[in-house]
Amino acid sequence: MPPFDVGNGPGAVSKETILTAVSLASVGPFGDASVLEVAQRIRRRETTALEVTEQSLEAVNEYGTELNCFITVDPEGARRAARDADRELALGHDLGPLHGIPVGVKDLMATSGLRTTMGSRHFAHHVPDADADAVMLLRRSGAVILGKTHTHEFAFGPTGDRAFTGPALNPLDTSRVTGGSSSGSAAAVAAGLVPIALGSDAAGSVRIPGALCGVVGLRPTAGLVSVEGVFPLSHSLDVVSPLARAVSDTAVAWWALSTKSTQEGIRRPIWSPSLLPEPGRAAQLRISEVKCDLTERVASSTQVEALQFAIETLTDSGASMSETCIPEVDECAQPHQNILFAEAYAIHETRVKSAPELFDPEILNQLSVASEVRGWEYVQAQQTRARLRRQALERLSVVDVLILPTVPIEAPLIGQRTLADKAGWTTVREALKSFTVPWSLLDLPAISVPVLVHGAKMPGSVQLVGKPGEEQKLLDTAAALEKAVTRLNATSSPYVQRTL
Amino acid sequence: MPPFDVGNGPGAVSKETILTAVSLASVGPFGDASVLEVAQRIRRRETTALEVTEQSLEAVNEYGTELNCFITVDPEGARRAARDADRELALGHDLGPLHGIPVGVKDLMATSGLRTTMGSRHFAHHVPDADADAVMLLRRSGAVILGKTHTHEFAFGPTGDRAFTGPALNPLDTSRVTGGSSSGSAAAVAAGLVPIALGSDAAGSVRIPGALCGVVGLRPTAGLVSVEGVFPLSHSLDVVSPLARAVSDTAVAWWALSTKSTQEGIRRPIWSPSLLPEPGRAAQLRISEVKCDLTERVASSTQVEALQFAIETLTDSGASMSETCIPEVDECAQPHQNILFAEAYAIHETRVKSAPELFDPEILNQLSVASEVRGWEYVQAQQTRARLRRQALERLSVVDVLILPTVPIEAPLIGQRTLADKAGWTTVREALKSFTVPWSLLDLPAISVPVLVHGAKMPGSVQLVGKPGEEQKLLDTAAALEKAVTRLNATSSPYVQRTL
Repeated sequence: MPPFDVGNGPGAVSKETILTAVSLASVGPFGDASVLEVAQRIRRRETTALEVTEQSLEAVNEYGTELNCFITVDPEGARRAARDADRELALGHDLGPLHGIPVGVKDLMATSGLRTTMGSRHFAHHVPDADADAVMLLRRSGAVILGKTHTHEFAFGPTGDRAFTGPALNPLDTSRVTGGSSSGSAAAVAAGLVPIALGSDAAGSVRIPGALCGVVGLRPTAGLVSVEGVFPLSHSLDVVSPLARAVSDTAVAWWALSTKSTQEGIRRPIWSPSLLPEPGRAAQLRISEVKCDLTERVASSTQVEALQFAIETLTDSGASMSETCIPEVDECAQPHQNILFAEAYAIHETRVKSAPELFDPEILNQLSVASEVRGWEYVQAQQTRARLRRQALERLSVVDVLILPTVPIEAPLIGQRTLADKAGWTTVREALKSFTVPWSLLDLPAISVPVLVHGAKMPGSVQLVGKPGEEQKLLDTAAALEKAVTRLNATSSPYVQRTL
Repeated sequence: MPPFDVGNGPGAVSKETILTAVSLASVGPFGDASVLEVAQRIRRRETTALEVTEQSLEAVNEYGTELNCFITVDPEGARRAARDADRELALGHDLGPLHGIPVGVKDLMATSGLRTTMGSRHFAHHVPDADADAVMLLRRSGAVILGKTHTHEFAFGPTGDRAFTGPALNPLDTSRVTGGSSSGSAAAVAAGLVPIALGSDAAGSVRIPGALCGVVGLRPTAGLVSVEGVFPLSHSLDVVSPLARAVSDTAVAWWALSTKSTQEGIRRPIWSPSLLPEPGRAAQLRISEVKCDLTERVASSTQVEALQFAIETLTDSGASMSETCIPEVDECAQPHQNILFAEAYAIHETRVKSAPELFDPEILNQLSVASEVRGWEYVQAQQTRARLRRQALERLSVVDVLILPTVPIEAPLIGQRTLADKAGWTTVREALKSFTVPWSLLDLPAISVPVLVHGAKMPGSVQLVGKPGEEQKLLDTAAALEKAVTRLNATSSPYVQRTL
């Protein structure tokens, strides 16, 4: 099934036109099925975990290779895990909706016995002997790890077109980047090869590829998901973050990854459908459009229309809608870069000195720039960060969810590095991360939700931002948006959407 | 009374010789009286807070000026506080042993309505409108703030001879430095002008001048005394730290400054003599001499003898004595410097750019060097710090108190910057802070205790280091040392000591 149903409104393009442009979107077995649907089919014995896994492996083999979205596929491990899942279910031991569902894991996260390369020649033959915590949590919920997805080398870039295995391709248009650094996870999900994939996000590394590939990307509040076993880009910014096709699938992943401290120790709640997002609850929320210098700089009309649609939809749904001026957002870019650069170079210093030739030249050059940040600039950046966060949290006291674009542009071409647009963006790197970086620095949870715009070749998206720990409100609001997009599409609206 | 009683052992020098060399030590009213003694005299109506304050003011006027150990004296404020103290005591409201006792405050700590210069032209006319927390705590315990003591400019140096008001002079030999940065506090206490003075310590700024001036300097565990209102040198290393003549006076200061979180909120315990150090308790402690490359580099035979005497004394007292190899100590200097430099420059960046001419040239040059530390070096330094601390705490699991010298040399001459000694020290700065820096980086409480050596012109000292929060064990051990020094002196031992 193609990724979009094409609306019949004015200016609608033919289904054929879209298919040509986006030929590898939604081609996999999860192109038209959510985790919960597949989970039900498994439990109704209409299929098995092994059969689903074989379908995913086949799709990965056929399309994943073309998209270059997996660095390592693990057919044997996946089949073994799927067989185990089937046996366990047959014995009546149900681990929840992810039981028997194939997923992808960003190749920055350690997988026991399975090669983990960080997208770099430095680790081309690296096989960890333990799982990252997040991987372990997925396994404990019964998920089948299909393989390791493409990452921008060492996660140090927002485009997803630099790794020792070459660039990942955007399933919606294979001449374009996926966005990064969780490039392969976004592409694999957008292509429907897996319903969920793990990413990580320090500057926007799940939200950016989520936006460019038309899938959901959630950056949770720092500290709620363990980063143990994830190769660091920036210790004080890294967060493990899931990508998924549907908002409900994102919620399932969020359930599997997040744990809470209880009196009995660290626990994950037992799965219950009540954990699913409820679009109706968005009507009770105070939603506010972010206004600042940055939000004036949206270069893509698709992104402008997506935001407009989202605001109208949420207003129609009964949510209280306002505008909030948050000047702090305009001050985030420099401190974020100083923190990320200093921490990233601290991680790579030894490698830069001992084996510089193993780095991609662009990454090596970027590291050389990163090495120049001064200690006092880093210290000031952390102090600025604390001040901006305090101020922003004060402004958020009367708001539940902020809304703004995820990115100001559409997916650039592979290898493209410069821009010349009316919004004043000159580099792809700067533009791509400009709208996601502030929430990383302020440590507020944020989700990118695809909002596909009529007639647009590439997907639009919006970013919802919440208060620390209020991921549920983001999921509820995202679900309301998703529902509206689906409904409008069903009634031949001018908005084109992805079928869920 | 002179600072030392001269022993009659072999090689003893005449009292006159010592007096010539150390003419300004112990000259003030607290030269031979502890806080508790004066407190008793006040309560027995043998004197009043006002009378004691007048005596201190007179001594400050006469000797403090020569020693250059006060930047600002506040006779009116002190008399007012002393009168209030007398009135309160007359009404039966007793705030504890510091009630009515004159103290000095390092001129890096804000005093409401009283000039606070940081030893710098930048703040030559700066009058804060609120007290630093530590100052407020002293006032709440009835202490009389006599004035603001000399500090090395912005606390950025271990010698105490650079400030816009000129160098502070060592009361034991006015051609020598006091050590710094809490230079004036150490000098004022050593001269007996006040029994207690506040300092701060990021690299050794109370322990070094304590050692060079022959008084007690305690660096508590970070976080136990608020640094609010203290002009920062290095946010992650600064600790408010008292200097005092006697160990019991140090304990009184520690009581006044430290607070504990209780169910009813932040509280200071009510004063009780049971808070005083108990030399006898040292016999129950496991004390261990630090062994590492650094401790091989003691250049001063006085410091070697002081350590030897302290170890013999504690062994004789019944304490379990061992040696502990702590190689982490040898790795502390570079990360400590990178952290301190980056944080210090972050604080002064604007001033360096807007008004460089107001800095002392040596400080400005040091800041210029500090600005060069790279962000990644700072990040690695903080990571190294965490690792070294973990490792050191493990080694401390079978030890209560570590012992080593406070400094490897004796007080250099004022203005002296280079060394050429058999231990390989080439710069005064490096040598002075070498033995104190490790415990700042590892955030372990440490106390410098004077152990005055027979025939030596300048005092010896040892440093005791404890586990986080175990200041009491340090005070008990220091009291045992102090008691032994006093006893030996009384029986004409080869060790010369300060009379308490």
